[in-house]
Amino acid sequence: MPIMSARRITDKIRPIYRRQDVVYVLDQLALPHKVVYRALRTPAQVAAAIRNMVLRGAPLIGCAAAYGYALAAKGARSSTPAVRKRLRREAKRLLASRPTAVNLAWGIRRMQSAADGLAVGKNGNFYHALLREADAVAAEDIETNLAMAACGAKLLPRGARVMTICNTGALATAGVGTALGVIRWAFRLRGLKHVYACETRPHLQGARLTMWELLQERIPSTLITDNMAAHMMKTERIDAVLAGADRIAANCDSANKIGTYGLAILARAHRIPFYIVAPSSTVDFSIRTGAGIPIEERSLREVVEIRGHRIAPKGIRARHPAFDVTPARLITALVTEKGIVRPPSRRKLKAVLSRTAV
Amino acid sequence: MPIMSARRITDKIRPIYRRQDVVYVLDQLALPHKVVYRALRTPAQVAAAIRNMVLRGAPLIGCAAAYGYALAAKGARSSTPAVRKRLRREAKRLLASRPTAVNLAWGIRRMQSAADGLAVGKNGNFYHALLREADAVAAEDIETNLAMAACGAKLLPRGARVMTICNTGALATAGVGTALGVIRWAFRLRGLKHVYACETRPHLQGARLTMWELLQERIPSTLITDNMAAHMMKTERIDAVLAGADRIAANCDSANKIGTYGLAILARAHRIPFYIVAPSSTVDFSIRTGAGIPIEERSLREVVEIRGHRIAPKGIRARHPAFDVTPARLITALVTEKGIVRPPSRRKLKAVLSRTAV
Repeated sequence: MPIMSARRITDKIRPIYRRQDVVYVLDQLALPHKVVYRALRTPAQVAAAIRNMVLRGAPLIGCAAAYGYALAAKGARSSTPAVRKRLRREAKRLLASRPTAVNLAWGIRRMQSAADGLAVGKNGNFYHALLREADAVAAEDIETNLAMAACGAKLLPRGARVMTICNTGALATAGVGTALGVIRWAFRLRGLKHVYACETRPHLQGARLTMWELLQERIPSTLITDNMAAHMMKTERIDAVLAGADRIAANCDSANKIGTYGLAILARAHRIPFYIVAPSSTVDFSIRTGAGIPIEERSLREVVEIRGHRIAPKGIRARHPAFDVTPARLITALVTEKGIVRPPSRRKLKAVLSRTAV
Repeated sequence: MPIMSARRITDKIRPIYRRQDVVYVLDQLALPHKVVYRALRTPAQVAAAIRNMVLRGAPLIGCAAAYGYALAAKGARSSTPAVRKRLRREAKRLLASRPTAVNLAWGIRRMQSAADGLAVGKNGNFYHALLREADAVAAEDIETNLAMAACGAKLLPRGARVMTICNTGALATAGVGTALGVIRWAFRLRGLKHVYACETRPHLQGARLTMWELLQERIPSTLITDNMAAHMMKTERIDAVLAGADRIAANCDSANKIGTYGLAILARAHRIPFYIVAPSSTVDFSIRTGAGIPIEERSLREVVEIRGHRIAPKGIRARHPAFDVTPARLITALVTEKGIVRPPSRRKLKAVLSRTAV
């Protein structure tokens, strides 16, 4: 009997769903103040929503991209050369929306395979078949999340006090989340005691989204600014740090939200285990080490303004790398839906991911 | 010939000055958007300005407290028992305004000694003498800053690229600043190349104040969020990290703005020298180690709101320790107006501070 029903979570917090030809996404820029859904009808609208971070989170970006791809075939009963051309163009646009999360490319690739298969087969309704394939991507993400949650929760001691960064919950995926999915599962199973959420500047996904999710489920939690992490590790008991990932290289170096690398160094300095929780679709075997992962540099406006309010003088320079890379040597274990990669290494990663299920 | 005139800086950026019975302080909560001075006429107003962070920075708090103490004697031609009682009461109030920066207590103690001396002596104008003593505290801070700046600049290589946290400049002192004073001096002397300023949540002193000061002086600089520090240390060349201090224990453990401890760990992990720059008035020999330094816990409102804008859901918990403690072992050297304490240790600190000048 599962201790956590995916439906229970996804009924409460539903970042993406489809009704006929329209994909509805929860506007994460409006959270936690407003719960507003945006209706996306074209691949261009999906790409814009990804780029502007109306939705974010690597697995969720993968789902959204799959829907965006399907929408490119709107009305197509079969896969004609014109339809295939349109699909190629829109796939390119979607792929360009954000560079770091590999789940985006994974989602598109999966849809392309499906489209290729359908093109060869019988002439049903090509567009509807693609929509159903995108639905399947989302449905599988729910299962994948639950498998990771169950797997990762075993790593935490009873009554654990954990720290996390960014948002890796139901808002970052189609299901219960990655790192936050583990936290949810552990809370229900063994009474995880407390979560310290780093606010995660510049976009404040920790303050706005993670705290909102934790509040919905009444999981005891405390918001801290990012620069309080070291002090908390020294003065409070923290049993583990959990983070998600946007792309994992073959050697297990992991790109994730800016600040994750620093947090991993601080965890090591305080002898606290540091876990990355991510589905196998986040692994990019084509990239040997973290040095090869492209790091998105976003607008400095997101740094010099907070929610539209200017915080720095005009005319200054600022940087905004949206991600950083945590080397495998700082990661205690990688949690995937197929099992735990510990210690993280190329060989161990290959071995675990070649399994069919956990 | 000094390469940097204190007057030149303090004419441009003047965080505190006195005209007759009124102390004017630059409202640092309004920066960088507005340059507004607040007129303080009573010790209670000075205490409130310190508590609310209208002014901040350990050395500046020391100067303000000295003025606050003098104002307690307003109108007193001599030190009567009633005046002494008033001074004791207001000293207590000023001391309670913020707990961590020891310069506050140092400023008050110095004024108390002056008051005691004056009480015994001839009957001039007691109040005016106290005002002049407070003026002297501010004037000496200017000299102290210049001595630290000259001393610390020697530690940096030509064309250095440095990182700093919070604001330790002309806005944190009566002079050119502590860590930022070193940066200023190095820039003028040997072409310091670049400053990375951490924004310093929750109060954003880095974004609002340090970037404003650097802009005034056209020192090349880049604003980063606090959680970008590790990524910058890895991907850019950073030659040194410089920070101020609010209280230094006898063993050289140093309390400073929250985030400093984490930055010191990150600097060590990247083999970057980490310097604390602070005047001898920041040293508290009565406290053996950092564990004894009281850490101010401020309102969580300053974490869940940014400049009046709510960033987190209502009903959540948050923490707001305003300072953390960096252990001496992570500090490469301590820069004081009397010389460099390297490596930082109780014995070396005593030896350097017993000198009369650098």
